[in-house]
Parts: sequence; structure tokens; C-alpha cells
Amino acid sequence: MSEFFKNVPKVEYEGPKSKNPLAYKYYDKNRVVGDKTMGEHLKFAMAWWHTLCADGTDMFGVGTANKSFGTSNPMNLAKAKVEAGFEFMDKLGIDYFCFHDRDMAPEGKDIDESNKNLEIISDLVLAKQKDTGKKLLWGTANLFGNPRYMHGAGTSPNADAFAYAAAQVKNALDVTKKLGGSGYTFWGGREGYETLLNTNMGLEQENMARFFKMAIAYADKIGFNEPFYIEPKPKEPTKHQYDFDAATTISFLRKYGLDDRFRLNLEANHATLAQHTFQHEIRVAREEGFFGSIDANQGDTLLGWDTDQFPTNIYDAAFAMYEVLKAGGFTKGGLNFDSKQRRPSFTLEDTAMSFIAGMDTLAVGLLVADEMIKDGRIDSFVDERYASWNSGIGKSIREGKEDFESLAAYASKLGDVENISGRQEMLEGIVNQLILDTLTK
Amino acid sequence: MSEFFKNVPKVEYEGPKSKNPLAYKYYDKNRVVGDKTMGEHLKFAMAWWHTLCADGTDMFGVGTANKSFGTSNPMNLAKAKVEAGFEFMDKLGIDYFCFHDRDMAPEGKDIDESNKNLEIISDLVLAKQKDTGKKLLWGTANLFGNPRYMHGAGTSPNADAFAYAAAQVKNALDVTKKLGGSGYTFWGGREGYETLLNTNMGLEQENMARFFKMAIAYADKIGFNEPFYIEPKPKEPTKHQYDFDAATTISFLRKYGLDDRFRLNLEANHATLAQHTFQHEIRVAREEGFFGSIDANQGDTLLGWDTDQFPTNIYDAAFAMYEVLKAGGFTKGGLNFDSKQRRPSFTLEDTAMSFIAGMDTLAVGLLVADEMIKDGRIDSFVDERYASWNSGIGKSIREGKEDFESLAAYASKLGDVENISGRQEMLEGIVNQLILDTLTK
Amino acid sequence: MSEFFKNVPKVEYEGPKSKNPLAYKYYDKNRVVGDKTMGEHLKFAMAWWHTLCADGTDMFGVGTANKSFGTSNPMNLAKAKVEAGFEFMDKLGIDYFCFHDRDMAPEGKDIDESNKNLEIISDLVLAKQKDTGKKLLWGTANLFGNPRYMHGAGTSPNADAFAYAAAQVKNALDVTKKLGGSGYTFWGGREGYETLLNTNMGLEQENMARFFKMAIAYADKIGFNEPFYIEPKPKEPTKHQYDFDAATTISFLRKYGLDDRFRLNLEANHATLAQHTFQHEIRVAREEGFFGSIDANQGDTLLGWDTDQFPTNIYDAAFAMYEVLKAGGFTKGGLNFDSKQRRPSFTLEDTAMSFIAGMDTLAVGLLVADEMIKDGRIDSFVDERYASWNSGIGKSIREGKEDFESLAAYASKLGDVENISGRQEMLEGIVNQLILDTLTK
Amino acid sequence: MSEFFKNVPKVEYEGPKSKNPLAYKYYDKNRVVGDKTMGEHLKFAMAWWHTLCADGTDMFGVGTANKSFGTSNPMNLAKAKVEAGFEFMDKLGIDYFCFHDRDMAPEGKDIDESNKNLEIISDLVLAKQKDTGKKLLWGTANLFGNPRYMHGAGTSPNADAFAYAAAQVKNALDVTKKLGGSGYTFWGGREGYETLLNTNMGLEQENMARFFKMAIAYADKIGFNEPFYIEPKPKEPTKHQYDFDAATTISFLRKYGLDDRFRLNLEANHATLAQHTFQHEIRVAREEGFFGSIDANQGDTLLGWDTDQFPTNIYDAAFAMYEVLKAGGFTKGGLNFDSKQRRPSFTLEDTAMSFIAGMDTLAVGLLVADEMIKDGRIDSFVDERYASWNSGIGKSIREGKEDFESLAAYASKLGDVENISGRQEMLEGIVNQLILDTLTK
Repeated sequence: MSEFFKNVPKVEYEGPKSKNPLAYKYYDKNRVVGDKTMGEHLKFAMAWWHTLCADGTDMFGVGTANKSFGTSNPMNLAKAKVEAGFEFMDKLGIDYFCFHDRDMAPEGKDIDESNKNLEIISDLVLAKQKDTGKKLLWGTANLFGNPRYMHGAGTSPNADAFAYAAAQVKNALDVTKKLGGSGYTFWGGREGYETLLNTNMGLEQENMARFFKMAIAYADKIGFNEPFYIEPKPKEPTKHQYDFDAATTISFLRKYGLDDRFRLNLEANHATLAQHTFQHEIRVAREEGFFGSIDANQGDTLLGWDTDQFPTNIYDAAFAMYEVLKAGGFTKGGLNFDSKQRRPSFTLEDTAMSFIAGMDTLAVGLLVADEMIKDGRIDSFVDERYASWNSGIGKSIREGKEDFESLAAYASKLGDVENISGRQEMLEGIVNQLILDTLTK
Repeated sequence: MSEFFKNVPKVEYEGPKSKNPLAYKYYDKNRVVGDKTMGEHLKFAMAWWHTLCADGTDMFGVGTANKSFGTSNPMNLAKAKVEAGFEFMDKLGIDYFCFHDRDMAPEGKDIDESNKNLEIISDLVLAKQKDTGKKLLWGTANLFGNPRYMHGAGTSPNADAFAYAAAQVKNALDVTKKLGGSGYTFWGGREGYETLLNTNMGLEQENMARFFKMAIAYADKIGFNEPFYIEPKPKEPTKHQYDFDAATTISFLRKYGLDDRFRLNLEANHATLAQHTFQHEIRVAREEGFFGSIDANQGDTLLGWDTDQFPTNIYDAAFAMYEVLKAGGFTKGGLNFDSKQRRPSFTLEDTAMSFIAGMDTLAVGLLVADEMIKDGRIDSFVDERYASWNSGIGKSIREGKEDFESLAAYASKLGDVENISGRQEMLEGIVNQLILDTLTK
Repeated sequence: MSEFFKNVPKVEYEGPKSKNPLAYKYYDKNRVVGDKTMGEHLKFAMAWWHTLCADGTDMFGVGTANKSFGTSNPMNLAKAKVEAGFEFMDKLGIDYFCFHDRDMAPEGKDIDESNKNLEIISDLVLAKQKDTGKKLLWGTANLFGNPRYMHGAGTSPNADAFAYAAAQVKNALDVTKKLGGSGYTFWGGREGYETLLNTNMGLEQENMARFFKMAIAYADKIGFNEPFYIEPKPKEPTKHQYDFDAATTISFLRKYGLDDRFRLNLEANHATLAQHTFQHEIRVAREEGFFGSIDANQGDTLLGWDTDQFPTNIYDAAFAMYEVLKAGGFTKGGLNFDSKQRRPSFTLEDTAMSFIAGMDTLAVGLLVADEMIKDGRIDSFVDERYASWNSGIGKSIREGKEDFESLAAYASKLGDVENISGRQEMLEGIVNQLILDTLTK
Repeated sequence: MSEFFKNVPKVEYEGPKSKNPLAYKYYDKNRVVGDKTMGEHLKFAMAWWHTLCADGTDMFGVGTANKSFGTSNPMNLAKAKVEAGFEFMDKLGIDYFCFHDRDMAPEGKDIDESNKNLEIISDLVLAKQKDTGKKLLWGTANLFGNPRYMHGAGTSPNADAFAYAAAQVKNALDVTKKLGGSGYTFWGGREGYETLLNTNMGLEQENMARFFKMAIAYADKIGFNEPFYIEPKPKEPTKHQYDFDAATTISFLRKYGLDDRFRLNLEANHATLAQHTFQHEIRVAREEGFFGSIDANQGDTLLGWDTDQFPTNIYDAAFAMYEVLKAGGFTKGGLNFDSKQRRPSFTLEDTAMSFIAGMDTLAVGLLVADEMIKDGRIDSFVDERYASWNSGIGKSIREGKEDFESLAAYASKLGDVENISGRQEMLEGIVNQLILDTLTK
């Protein structure tokens, strides 16, 4: 069997002083943090598409990375990617992967051939899983790349496109179940509009809901009882995507009664494209009960498109992991690296180094988040800040005993309101302390 | 009685060729468009705050416009503003106004004195209304300017601030009812957070819902049966405002069972700050059944703050009015000019010229929108684009007769999907034709 | 000879009432505006790449438009595109085109074969030009698509990439001269950096200047005496491009003594990506003496990437043409449609309709700009606004007769400063009048 | 003498484990880093305006912080601020300050009275400086707050405004010299335009240059030989400011021959408003030879206005300090905290805690930057990346020995270009190591 990542050895934890670019400095899989190991907390997943398919092509240039794995025949390439993918997961010590149907196996001349292709390749994947113990975090179907979806899939003005998409998702669900996936994700890259001048927004959204309901029905039928995820994104490629952000998506799910079965798969770069911090999106999902899984990456807030960079910002990682810990950790979800190496980082070693940078950063994020909670200064500041709601008029309001008239009478006697400082700068200083303390804990 | 806008005559319609800066070129109040006059379609309202209070102060400079109306005593100023406001509405031929409690009457040493001040001034307003027939579109309370609301009002960590806000809204509702207002608006400028580090988002939003429910209960009690509006804005002054945009706000209203009584008051500049077009926000509200009223202004999409410019862009006006017409026109709502003259446009004549520019633009917008519908090319293009949903597989899907299996069987026979062009550029060309045709219709 | 744009007839001017999507409503080539015909004012050019090559591929999907022109062999395709391009120019009545070396002819196995390919195809183009009278506005070389330029061309850390780029530009200059091009453009899509962590900015910019100096020397040697253009863009594909905007580019040109021979080719969408209006960029170039040519398109200011839409906004067109008229009109430059039909506007008819929408819009822009100047209200407002600089202290300052001490003495006697209003809203109202008046002039 | 910051003790270095919010954890003034102490590297300055004047007023609310220092009389307040300012600098151990003329002393009824006010207060400041050894980093004049500057000062259409500004700067220069200032700064908050419709950009920029030349002439006359700084900002309050960013400002300075005497004062938040990283702006200034001084703060890249937050991001601090170290450190310039406490951080203790957070962050930034250089991995990666320019064809190009023809011949033999990876992710991982290592070094 070929070795594809020849210059990538088995990547080990060497500790924070290591200058080996192909070693972990912080991600120590078996280190216990709180009640779980790092490996259990950080359910890292390799995204099939970026890791095995993305070659650095952008809107102004062709690929720079060689991801041909020694062949140009589509089916042979798909098979080689199975080998390469499992080699990579093994070398990096990653336990999960995620796949798109069309990135795992090539599209055929019709849906039947496409399904057949996917069946063949997914059988190989399944065999590999059995050999290695690697698991499928979630599957999805690519409903945005083919011209048939130029106007959307579930929201297409063309009912045939809807039907085709249904066929595709049906099969992707079958394969996801076969591979033991613990979830299924929808990302609606073309579910939205380019211009309102030609768009019936109401019908499109109703149809989308119909599509999701059929997906639930089919999953029930085949006994796929794992969560569905929607992955919000505000735009790109589409001018406006309906699943703009967590709040908008939750609204849609509630409106159409889809809230029992659907959770959110949140991506850092999609959050910032919607002008939210990543932490904000996770917080919203957590507070609303829709937290599911994470697409780990980062954007560049000074750029306006989805750069899908590997996450290397410790702040973002720490705040994200803080929310994850507060949400009770991952159950079915995990941290899928929907990240791609920069176009000029074109070698297969860069693929590995990029994962290392991302995994180390999230490991540090976990340590900082854990320490934020243990240290207690931040959480207790918040508790005290809201203390007025636990007694007196605050408690009475929460218990439903007050109305505008009773409150007006209260306010009339109050004189004025005394506030306490929000102490943002002090809190930001504490976060820096917790980060810098990582190695001394 | 003093005349305040001395250089502003009664502003008349002089037609498109007029070079008189103090005449309407397009807004011809009695001109019939469709089934109503322009005046009936375009229920223009003067915003008390910007028109009578805003003096051009910005974060880097003091006021440039003299809005002292000859006095510096706060209550005398408030009285003078009543005179000035009605003079202005009369001269411009504007039938409605909107007010904030604290912009209409000065805050006193405590809530009782503040209420007393507002009672005195609102009595004068009421008398003026009776004399002139001018009407209150909606009222609101300023729950963001005073330091007591530095952390929010309905979402404050401080229960006393909540209580004080309740007292203030209670009184503002009383005054709105007294003045015959046809709605009441909430804009949550401080209802959000500066940093998640010190924020209990869940509690804050529950409290906000409690606040709104008390407002409904009180309105019911006093027999104020008009709609409540929430005005979404994503940020500014706050880092993040909970009422981010139409979709987010609707989600909140539905979650807490507030959807019967609340509608949206949508502002153009707030839309673009949330990265939406204004048309998008109205479309969302319309499709969801939450369309209420409009804050007419425009932002500068190359700037990142709320510039509240007078609306002079014909495209935006036409697309907004198209949505309004499609929504059946305004019922209780209208077009409130939440717009301020530019800081260097500092004279009282500029106040008038700014309204003229805005009203003329919206009048053109109405004419174009009406013609978009009459011309029919755009609407029929949309109808045809979605025709596949009215028969065959599309109809069957809508009727709930299909599932993933039946659709997969259908797709299997389909071969591939044939799409038709979205024709965006052609449609944009048609819009230009309709605009340029305004004077020849 | 094949006809490629079968459903596109010869596009004629039918006037503003026409509902024929394949007719001009405003662009009347021989209509005289001021001292020239519309055709002379608006030197429209077809961009080879978007018109003949762009198939709707984006980062999330493959092409939707069929631009294969009946063949898949690269050289045959290049030949077919020559036929198709001239057919299109003929049918649309467009007199100019622009080309990239690699979009006109396929890259070969080495530079010699690439040059040979381009020689063959450009011979065909030249023959077509002789037959039809169509002219080359400008040529350019694609120094961004091939992986060899992943780190830049003139700014590459790799001297070999620089050398290769030199070879490529040398040949592109030869071909541009052969085809009688009236200019040569550099767009530095990869001339910048992805991260400062690995970048020697100083050396990169010095090398870029060396590259441009060699280009001038070679042009002089072959007798190519037409202007060079730099086309600024702030980012995309690169994180930061050195030619960020007009001002930055002019600074670079002055610093390195390149200001005699270089002018700017300004693109609307690049302007807005740099947070400038298009008018701003042209104004800067005009005031600094660097106005050259225009890439006609438009962006979406609510999106953060280069959408390259066909220009359909009348305001932007009018303000751009106002600057062009004030600059004395185009000399060597023109209006190159660096615009692509939307991905869902995938038919060849859409290609034509898109050009029609763009050309009509720019024609309206010309008419409005011409009327802005003839009407005189705007220009005379500006003149009066600055009148204080033509006499008294203002004149004295301009004549160099004043210093801080004399001005302090003057200010001391002045009391305070009286300003006049900037009248922005009134001026915006006048612009609307001029637009709406287009058909009645 | 009153103590104003009663709850703020003398702030001492207590080390990284301290939980005392009023102690330094990282800023250890006398710690030696490289060849200087932290105190010498980090020439921190207190900005008079934010520290002593800013009370939390924003566009939607009045002040929350009490900065009245016990008096409401303007001159008494100015005097109290002198006491408060020196108390604060003493308690925090800050050696420098910066001032605006109008924030130090109140504007009088005319320029003479304003000058007199400033003379009185600056005499007090001077006396304090002699007592305490505190130094003036730079002075400036507020040419944006007063309505007389509504259209600009040096770029005003009104020559009287120009003259008045000249008088004001003359006096501010006198005071800056009196107080031993080591620089003088211009920030052109109103030097730009609101709309091009009423703007003569060419004349405005010429006048601005005249203004600066007069400033140089006057400085020479009074023997003020310190650098002038321009502080770029792209917008806000103005729609467009001429000093958009470092590159634009350098262009202006070169064009008008002002480059000998002017350097840049760069602000982090202004950088991001211009879509640049802070590091980018310093790098540009450094490479161009215009690096001068820094306004230390940070913005929020998800917001679109100048938030002037205290700098608490370690990455930004490290990259900024890396550039400062590479530029040879500060000579005349320093780190002026043009930062304001958040509006809800309204107490005087928050003022101190905010400075502590900022100073600690920049101290960490210095340590990381120093280690970036000492560690050497990043710099040597860059050196190797550009190695091709030190020999062979690269060296020959730099020595001016090549032209397009020789390079074409070279390329023809080259075959193709071999690139090496840019290794962005690896480098980002190294930066994280260096940060996390701060406490172990």
C-alpha cells in the first residue's frame, strides 16, 4: 500500500518546548482536563473535502497543491483518497472524519451511477473504519456545486432540482447510517437568493421546510436516529443565504416545527461573516438549546469572504471551548476542521502542520476555558452582576408578581438607579492572565 | 406666536422642472396612485427628536445647528419645540409625527417630575393636534440615553433599572394613548451586551420578554389596542443588540408568544448595518406577517455606523415601496423620517430641504413601485420562474404527496435537471427603464 | 463559419419604450452629447476573459454557462473564441476589446510554447481586426493564475518567478503592440502578501518597481509608446495587495519615478472593496493627473468580495461619467467591461442582455453627467462654496503671502467664523431631478 | 490638595500570579528586555482627553463617568484636571502625557481668551512637570470639535476657518514647545469631505499642504525642532478623510515635499477602520521611513466605528512591538493611550484598571516580540524565503544587470518555477508558542 504523506511521520506530543514542526506542543490526547481526556473533549474530525480534495484553487488561480494521490481516474482517485485519508487520520491521531457525498465519490452520468460510485467507495471506507476504529462524525450531501443547483436545491424555483436533491440526500443518509455517522449536516450554500427581483422568498422557505420534514421522515424510516444539523452562513456563494446565522436558523426551525430534531453546526468563519463573534453564535445556540457541533476554522475579519483558515487564535479557541464546556461538552457533535491550508502552503507537510497548529490551538483553548471556570473570577463576577434578580424586586419580577403599575410605584420611591461597573477591561486582563498561565498550571 | 422656520415658506408641489429648493418636485399629495392618493400611501411622519432636537453633535464635535428656538430653559424649550414642530408639519404638509418621551419633555429630578413635565407638554401637543388635525403615528420611551440604562433597560443586570424603565414606558403608553397614537415602538439600543465576558444572555432575554408582556398587559388595561413595534438594529451604541434584524426579532417574538401583538418597525440604515438590503428586511417581515411601520432614512454602506441620512436613493425607495404595496400598504404604520440633516447642513432651511429631498424620493419610489407592478414584467417573470411548483412533481410535493423515496425514483428517471436563467441583469435593466420613465407616465 | 450567439440578433437602439430585452433603450451610438457622439464618449470594450471564458465557476460550484464554443481542444477553443468574440462585438456594436495572454491562448508546456500559442491566436485576432475595424483597448498578462505565481510575480520571493513573469510580459507587450493596443495594464492580484510573518515588504516593492522599469525600457525599445496602467485592488485573492487603491498606487509610482509613463485603470468593484466610492477613485486619479482608463462593473457593498457585476446603477454611472467628462474624456483609455453575468444568468443571451444593461446604464450616466454640467447648479454651488479663496485672506494665503503669525493676527480680529451650509441633501435632490429628467431632455 | 482617584493606590508590579486588579502582572518598569528597560521601551503616555475628559458620552447617551473632579466652572475644572492628571500618572507610574489644546483649557469667547486660558493652565502643567519629571510626548490642537470647523480646518472651503485654525495651531505649538514636547500631531478629523457633490478636492489638498508648510515655518522660527506627526484615519466623523491610511498620507507628504519633517502617528483602531492590520500600518511606515509614534488602543473589527478600546489583545501588541523593535524602537515617539474605558466601565477605578490591562498587554507584547527576534525561527524563515535574491539571477536583477530580454532568455531555459511553501500555519503556531512561553522565559 502506498504511503501518501511521506514526509509526515506519526505526529506525537512533544510538549511546549518542542521546535519540531511535526509534533504537538499542547495537544496531549490522554491528558485529563476536568472529567475527561483532551481527546474526549476535543472530538477532532478530518473534513474529507478540504483535507483530501482542496488543492488551493481560488477565483483567480488554479490549484497549487497536488492532491491527485498518484492518479487521474476519478474512481481510482476516490479510492486513493480513502487510503490517504485513513493514513492521515492515523498519523495525526484523529479519530473522526466528515464527508460530502460528491467529495468522497465522483458524480456519475446520472443519480444511479453517482449512488453506485458512492456505494463502492463507502464500502472501502467502512472496511477501513472497521480496521482502524475511526468514526464518522457526520455526513452531508453536496447540494451546491452542480449547475442543477444554481438556483438552490430545497429552495430551487425548479421542482426537479428539489427532487434531485431529495434523491441525493436520501442516499447520503443511507451512507451516513451505513458508516455509523453520529449526525447529518445541511449547509445551504445556494439556499437563498441572488436578487429579490426574481425571488419568491415565502415559497422557497416553505419548500425548504418540506425538504427537511421529508429528511426526518426518511431518517425515521431507516432508523437513523442521530441529530440533523443546519450550518448557518449569511452569504457566499449566494448573495443572501436563508440560514443567515444561529438566531435566524433557530427561528426557521421553530416556525416549521423542526426544533426537536435539528441542532446547529456552527462555523467560526461563518459567524464573523455575519458580524458575530464565534462565541456569540455558540452562546446563542447554547442558550436556545440548539448547540450541536462545530466547524473549527477561523476567518479574517478584515476580509469579506470565507477564508476557512485553520484556527490559530487562542482567544477565539478559548471562548469557543468555554461555551462548549458550559454546554456540557459535545455529545454527538465534535470539532470538524472545515479548514484549508493557505494556497501558498501547498505541500502535504503543510496539511499536517496546519492540523497541528489548529489542534494545538484548540487544546490550549480547552485548557484556558477549563481554567476560566476553575479560576472562577469571571463566572462569579457575572453571578454578582445579576444578583439583583435573586431577591427583592428582581425576584418578584421573575416570579411574575409585578406589573407596570407596581413597578411604577416602586420606581417612584426609588429616586434613581445605582449601577455597578461592567469591568470589561479588568475581565479582559484576567483572560490574558489565564492564557499566559497555560504552561504553569 | 413666533415663526421659527422663517426662511421656510409653505412648501408646495411645483413639479419636476422646478428649481425652487423649497418646493416639491414629485410629491404631489393629492395625486392618485392606484387606489389611493400619494398622501394616503405615504404616511409621512416627522420625528420629534431629529427634527426638533438634533443639532449636529457627533462624537467629535458639538452642535452646528441652532435648535434652541430662542430659549435655554428646558421646559420653555420643550414648549417652543411644540410650536416649531407644528409650524414645520404645517409648512411641509406632513400629517404625522413620532415622539420619544425625553425628547418631547425634559427629564426631571425623579420619575414623577419627568412624568409631570411630559404631561404638561403633551397637553400642549394634544391641543395643537386638535387645532391642526395632525396625528401621532407612534410614541416611544427613551430607555438608552440616561446612565441608569448603561447596561440596558429591560435587559439590565440591575432589577431597579428594569423597574424604572417599566415606569417610564407605562407613562409613555399613557401619553401615546392620550395623543391618539396608532402604535408604540421599542428600540432596544442598550438591550444587548458589550462583552459576553460579563453577560447572562439567557436571563437578559427572558427579562426582556417579561417586560414586553407587562407592556401588553398594561396596554390592554388602558384600552390601548394599537400595535407594538420592535425596531431591529444589530449594534450601535451596543456591541451587540438582541434585536439584530427582522429574522432574529421575529424569532424572539415567536419564542415568547409575543407574535400576536408585536410587529416590526424597520429602518433602512439598521438593515444595512446588519448587512441586509432594506428591501430584504421588509420582505422578511412581509412574508412572516410582521410588517408594521418604517423608519425612513438611508445609511452609507461604505461607513459602519448609523448615519441616519435622509433617503435620496431612488432604487432603495422603489424597492421599499414595492414591498409596502405588496404588503397591502400601511395600515397603522407609516414612514417616520428617522433622518437627520448632515452636520454641515446646519440651517433650518436645510431641515426643510432634507425633508423635501426625502419625501420627493419616496414619492418617486411609490411611482416606480406602482409601475413595477402595473408593468408586470418583473412579477410575471417571477411567476413563471416558479411555475414548476404549480403542476406535476412540484404540485405533488406541495400537496404533501411525496417523500424521499418517491422523489428518488422520480430523479432516477429524470436524467438531469434543466434550469432556466435567473435573468438578473435583464431585470435590473427593466428597473432602470421604470425609473427613467417616471416623468413620462 | 459558425454562429455562436445564435439567439442574439444584431442589437439595435430602439429607444426608452422598447420592451425588447435584446435592444438598447438608451445607448444610441451616434447620438451627439456635447461635442462627441455617445460612441466616442463611451469607448466600450469587451473583456476577452469574462465574455468568452468565464463560465460561472465559483468557489462552491462548477461552471453553469457553456463557453466551450463547440470544442474541447484548447487551441481550437482559443480559435473559436476569436470567432465568437468578433461575432459578439459585431452584434453588440462594441468597437474595442481587452485581453489577457492566457485567456486568449492556452498556456503551453513551457514559455516558448505559450508564446507560440499566443502568436497563432493573435494572428487570427489581427486578421479579424483588419476585417472589422475592431480595436484593442489594452492588453495584459495573467501573472496570477499559475501556481508559479502563488507568492506573486514581480513581488515573488522567488527570483525565477520574477524572471518568468518578465518573459510573459515581454511577450504580452509584443502582442499588444502587434494588435495596435492603445495601452497595457498591470493588475497585481498576487502582488502583496498573505501574512506579514513571512514577508519582506520592502524588498518586494523595490522589485516591483524594478519590474515596471524594465517594462518601460522594453516598451521604449519596441516603440510601444502607449500608456501603462496599474489597476488598484485592495485584496482578493491576496490578503493584502500593494496597489490597495488609487492613492496608494500613485504614491508608489511617484516614489519610484514611474509617474510619467503610468496611469490608473480604475475598477468600480475594486473601489468599493477599498471602502471608496468609484467616483472617489476617479476623482483622486483626476486631481493627481493619473486618470487613464476604467474597468466598468459594480460590486455589492453588502458583500465582501469582487462580484464583478455588470454596472446597472445609474448613480454610480452618472458620477463616474461626470468625473470622466471633467477629466476631458477618455484619450487612450475606455470602458472595459470587467463584468461577468451572474452565475444563474447562464445563457449566451444573458451575456448580451448583461452588456445591454451595462451599456444602457453608462449611456444614461453620460446623459446625466452631461446635464449635471450643463444644468450648472452643482458646479456653481461648488464654485461659490470656495469663493473665499479667490479674494481677501484666502487669495493672500494661496499667493503665499501669509504665515501663522499674520493669520493669528487676522483671526484675533475675526471674532468667529461664519460658515455656509454644505447643502448635501439639496444637491442630492438635484441629482435625482437630473436623472429623472433624462428622457425629457 | 485633593486626591481624586481615591480608590486607586500606587499601582505596583506584583507579577503574573497576582489577582489584585490594581496591580501590574507583566509591566515591570525596570525589567531589562534586550538593551533597555521595559519603561524605556514602552514610553507610555496618558492622553489628557480620554483620561481626564471622556465621560462615556456616546451618540445615544450622556456621560456615565464623573469626570467633573468636584467642580463645574470650566477653568476650575481645567485646573482640577491638571491635579488629577498628575495624580494619575504618578499612581500608575506613567512618564508621559499628550494633550489637545481645548481639552486642556476651555475655549474662550474668542481666540485671545482661548489662548489666555491655555496659557494659565499650561503654566500649571509646566510647574507640575518640573515637580514630577513627567514629560509631554506631543501636543495637538483640536481642529474638529467647534462648528467653525464643520467643513474642515486646513481644508475648509472657508478661508476664515483656515486662518482661525492657523492661529490655534500657532498657539498649540507655542505651548507644546513650552512644555518641552517631543513632537506635535495633526489628526484631520474634518479634513476630508461628506460628499463629492460639494467638494473641490484638489484645492482642499493644496491648502492642507500650505497649512503644513506654514506650521513647519513657524516651528522653525520658534526653534521647535521636534517631528510633526500626521495621524491617518480613513473616516469618522467625516465620510472620507484625506489621511486615509499610512500609504495615502505618505503619498501626500512626498507630493508636497513635507517628507523631511513629518512622520506618522499610527493608531490601531484607525488601521482596522481602513481594513489594515495595525502591524501593516507600522510596517508600511517603517519600510517607507515614516515611523514616528503610536496611539495605543484597539478596535473591534466586527464594528464599524472607532471604539478606542484599551489594547488587550496580545497578538496585536506583539506584532506592533515587533515592528517597533525592528524600527529601532521609539526615538521621539511613544505609546499614547488614545483609549477610553467602555461606557459601562464608568468608575475612576476602571480608568486605572483599563490602563493596567493596556500596559500589561503591551508589556507582554514587548516580551513576545523580543522573543520572536531572539528565537529567530520567524526571521530566519523570511531570510531563507528570499534567498534567491542574494545570488544568481535574483542578485543580477537587483544589480540592474537584467532586462526583459535577458530574463525571457533565462525563463526559456528554466522550464518552470519551483516554489517553496509559505508555511503560514507553521509560523502562526510558532507565534502561539512564543506567547504561551512568556512566563517561562
